[in-house]
Amino acid sequence: MMEPPEGWELRGRPPALFRRFEFGGYRETRLFLDRLAELSEEVGMHPQNINFGTTYANITLEASDGGELGPEEHALAARINALPGPVVS
Amino acid sequence: MMEPPEGWELRGRPPALFRRFEFGGYRETRLFLDRLAELSEEVGMHPQNINFGTTYANITLEASDGGELGPEEHALAARINALPGPVVS
Repeated sequence: MMEPPEGWELRGRPPALFRRFEFGGYRETRLFLDRLAELSEEVGMHPQNINFGTTYANITLEASDGGELGPEEHALAARINALPGPVVS
Repeated sequence: MMEPPEGWELRGRPPALFRRFEFGGYRETRLFLDRLAELSEEVGMHPQNINFGTTYANITLEASDGGELGPEEHALAARINALPGPVVS
């Protein structure tokens, strides 16, 4: 089992990577989500679920085939961590 | 108590309007969310929570002051219903 990228936790079942991001306000949250949408387009992978409010976004990444998480999901999680944006936690 | 706009249900507490929208795929879901973001900017009100995946978006509207829902929340719900987009339910 691969170690999840910094800040992400492993959840199952089905196996998933989960992380909560917090922001100073709606505008920052929106900016982060827009950048995440662009990243998703670029890599052709989308989080299985995004749950957001004015100051947070909870992101769940599952294996696309419902099986084990692989390098693709870990790489996407790491790239989400690297998104520019005023992430405060 | 006002009747909620078509397709929305009243939930509490705190009092909230809730509706699930379903789509044919990620692209339609994304388009709907982008339009919803533009609408939110326009009216200066944001859903308290949006929970979405590739083919759905669950939207919760609460009163901004934590009190009773008012005409503003009902009007926003009705405008969300009227967003152009391939909403299938």
